[in-house]
Amino acid sequence: MAFAVAREKSEFLYQQVINLVRQMRDQGLLQPGQKLPSLRSLATKLSVSVPTVKQGYEELERLGEISARPKSGYYLSVVQATNSAPRRARLSNKAVPVKRQSLIEQVYEAIHTPGVLPLGIANPVAAHSSEKTLARTMRRVMNQAGQTAINYGPMDGFAPLKRQLALRYLDFGVPVDPAELVITNGAQEALAIALQCVAEPGDIIAVESPCYFGILELIESLGMMAFEIPLCPDDGIWLDDLSATLEQQTIKACIFSTAISNPIGSLMPEDNRKKLVALLESYNVPLIEDDVYSDLCFTEKRAIPAQAYSQKKQVITCASFSKTAAPGYRIGWMIAPKYIEKAKRIKRALSCSSSLINQWTLSEFIASGDYERNVQQLRRTLMINRDRMIASVKQEFPPNTRISCPRGGGVLWIELPSGQDAVDLFYKALNEKISIAPGAIFSPSNKYSRCFRISYGLPWSDEVEKAIKTLGQLAYQGIEPSRARTG
Amino acid sequence: MAFAVAREKSEFLYQQVINLVRQMRDQGLLQPGQKLPSLRSLATKLSVSVPTVKQGYEELERLGEISARPKSGYYLSVVQATNSAPRRARLSNKAVPVKRQSLIEQVYEAIHTPGVLPLGIANPVAAHSSEKTLARTMRRVMNQAGQTAINYGPMDGFAPLKRQLALRYLDFGVPVDPAELVITNGAQEALAIALQCVAEPGDIIAVESPCYFGILELIESLGMMAFEIPLCPDDGIWLDDLSATLEQQTIKACIFSTAISNPIGSLMPEDNRKKLVALLESYNVPLIEDDVYSDLCFTEKRAIPAQAYSQKKQVITCASFSKTAAPGYRIGWMIAPKYIEKAKRIKRALSCSSSLINQWTLSEFIASGDYERNVQQLRRTLMINRDRMIASVKQEFPPNTRISCPRGGGVLWIELPSGQDAVDLFYKALNEKISIAPGAIFSPSNKYSRCFRISYGLPWSDEVEKAIKTLGQLAYQGIEPSRARTG
Repeated sequence: MAFAVAREKSEFLYQQVINLVRQMRDQGLLQPGQKLPSLRSLATKLSVSVPTVKQGYEELERLGEISARPKSGYYLSVVQATNSAPRRARLSNKAVPVKRQSLIEQVYEAIHTPGVLPLGIANPVAAHSSEKTLARTMRRVMNQAGQTAINYGPMDGFAPLKRQLALRYLDFGVPVDPAELVITNGAQEALAIALQCVAEPGDIIAVESPCYFGILELIESLGMMAFEIPLCPDDGIWLDDLSATLEQQTIKACIFSTAISNPIGSLMPEDNRKKLVALLESYNVPLIEDDVYSDLCFTEKRAIPAQAYSQKKQVITCASFSKTAAPGYRIGWMIAPKYIEKAKRIKRALSCSSSLINQWTLSEFIASGDYERNVQQLRRTLMINRDRMIASVKQEFPPNTRISCPRGGGVLWIELPSGQDAVDLFYKALNEKISIAPGAIFSPSNKYSRCFRISYGLPWSDEVEKAIKTLGQLAYQGIEPSRARTG
Repeated sequence: MAFAVAREKSEFLYQQVINLVRQMRDQGLLQPGQKLPSLRSLATKLSVSVPTVKQGYEELERLGEISARPKSGYYLSVVQATNSAPRRARLSNKAVPVKRQSLIEQVYEAIHTPGVLPLGIANPVAAHSSEKTLARTMRRVMNQAGQTAINYGPMDGFAPLKRQLALRYLDFGVPVDPAELVITNGAQEALAIALQCVAEPGDIIAVESPCYFGILELIESLGMMAFEIPLCPDDGIWLDDLSATLEQQTIKACIFSTAISNPIGSLMPEDNRKKLVALLESYNVPLIEDDVYSDLCFTEKRAIPAQAYSQKKQVITCASFSKTAAPGYRIGWMIAPKYIEKAKRIKRALSCSSSLINQWTLSEFIASGDYERNVQQLRRTLMINRDRMIASVKQEFPPNTRISCPRGGGVLWIELPSGQDAVDLFYKALNEKISIAPGAIFSPSNKYSRCFRISYGLPWSDEVEKAIKTLGQLAYQGIEPSRARTG
């Protein structure tokens, strides 16, 4: 096979690789699921270096167009959803107080109603349960620890767990001082403490749009204001928009997920992540990164937290085990180099320490290697589930439905055709014993009325497949009135 | 034996019973540890009714002068410390911002330093460990729950635990609607949520003086101000002082422990508790009650939470399992009838839900009766430890050392003779590998410099006894310079 590659002088070399793969795909030379040429063979064919091909492949992988399988190579993704991703919303240029509580309460209630399929909750752990290994570990810890297992642990966290976390960060090349790390009650408490470290009631916090509703609720609860920065489904935060906002508004802090955002599933390119940190530090604005999904990146190389690029130590990384191991253990952490003393004081005042036995169990779970094994399997399962669910939504939903192609994590973001209302769909779905998360709760300014979030974090089953079918039928019903009007 | 009782017309009948017992004691007719006359025999002798004698005995019990042994009767307390309780501090009449953090940090650090005897922490659970029963229960729960054990629980708490708690309250005659109850990460998070339900930054919160330093830290962390109301070692909050304060200051809310206060161990008489609630409701001031110790009252009848007397539903009860079963599980709760919707929202925003497996285990622990059995044994052990420690302090410390006689809980509050500094003692004790909690951290206005708190919640041992001896020697050293001056 010979490949014709149009070269432009200004073009990065690796862009040629990307163009070539896309060309082969569009021409049907590469079929979904088919293996890509090896790095070496393509390098030879294009007369470029192996690292250049690698760079091109990694970028395609980040964009979800191809995926890596360990020790095997790169494969064309089964689902190519990039171009049908939900559109960027037009956002207001005002900071707004957050008010969507009643709907959020109903979403949570639906999730915990027996007999209702919980597609509305972001709970990827269910896809590949670590329950048995964790239970075994906890039994062992109870035997070892005796009386100590029920005692108060240190306020800032169980030292061995802090060490294990620091070692993990070191594995991806990010040195973290355990003394700058505080164990919290999940990432939510970490975010609560982080916000209180850097901002006060009345302050404006820049958030992603769409934004995880738990963050919006937190900002409201602390009497702060949210300012929405639009997300690009591929690249995450639009740096130009952010830059313009920083110029025009007094932003006290940002809460972003630079690795995998929730609900949209974007992954910032490493270069953008560096630029983001530099931009914020030039304005002296602290970045709080909600990093709960970075262990679930579908790229071969795990995303490096923005923390690693900070010069001024103004990045606070918040994360947890809730999306990767044990949501119900409620153990998270924060890395807050500049604000550590304040963070420790606030943690102590808010809830003293976190559950010692849960910390201890998770510490052993990492140390034994079980955590990493579990996360790897979970990632593989989630990738398969994602592709299945995208395919299923494509098949069952009305034309012009737009679907995200998440780069990791466990949720899809879906935009219904114009004229439809996702809150309406939420209620109709609940009647059918299916919970979804309507888009309205992901914005303080009532954007995303046509969008909703569903989880592919349940084990794939006929029930899930049937639920997608039912949701699709409900979505078809939603467009009938307008059809009737035009017909 | 014949008893001569001086009757005064205005005197309550039960006061005669009290006077008689004290007279017998002072005359040596009743020895410490000796059994008191039965209710019936004393009623006959005094020509009063059995309930009147019972009322007098209960009052003496509340005051710590006698104690009840189930199915046996009443006994003269071994230690009669009432009259040597630390004195009421002269308090400023200004609200003050709270600042004692560095010392608090050192106290916590000392507690968690290996090899240091943790007398500085209030951890009564250690006296009679429930660890084995809890471990067995947790194993059973893991077997039953499977995958569910690691999942997210409902935001406001695991329903069976809420039901078990409501049933327990019903046992002491307090009806609690589980829907008005939220499970939290320990009582500390409950207090944090409660404060945010009723007050805002800048508001003044009335606290007990001396006050548990965790509450002072919380008030500071939320940007509020603390106003100290003096405690009577016997009767708790002085209602006259509180009434005057309410007249003069804009108090936004109160945080009191009407059952057992920390560190002083006072127990408000039931009548005062009723008056307290009525007084606060007449000023429309919400009461947050820190009720973590009420299951550890040394009176035969468990203290009823102030919640029970509320007409306006403005009392928020905060409690936990940390002082009675498993501090390290970090499970507490709050009852907030009037503020329940706000409380649920704040809990969700602060930390989502609490550890499901820990909640589940505690729920089974109550349902099986193990909790109540454990608490009863713990109370007995703590009473014995208290008396031992008071006796030991009396023997080892300089004359004019004043000692509290706690009505429950697990800590003693000790006032050194004049001229001494308890922070100094804290550092000297730490050199000897003993941690204590210096009085300075229990007041935002640097009161109680001569006081310190020690726990009798460790199993009684030679090590504990030796530590008291060492502390006593250090206290003697502290007074030597002034002796030298006067000598």
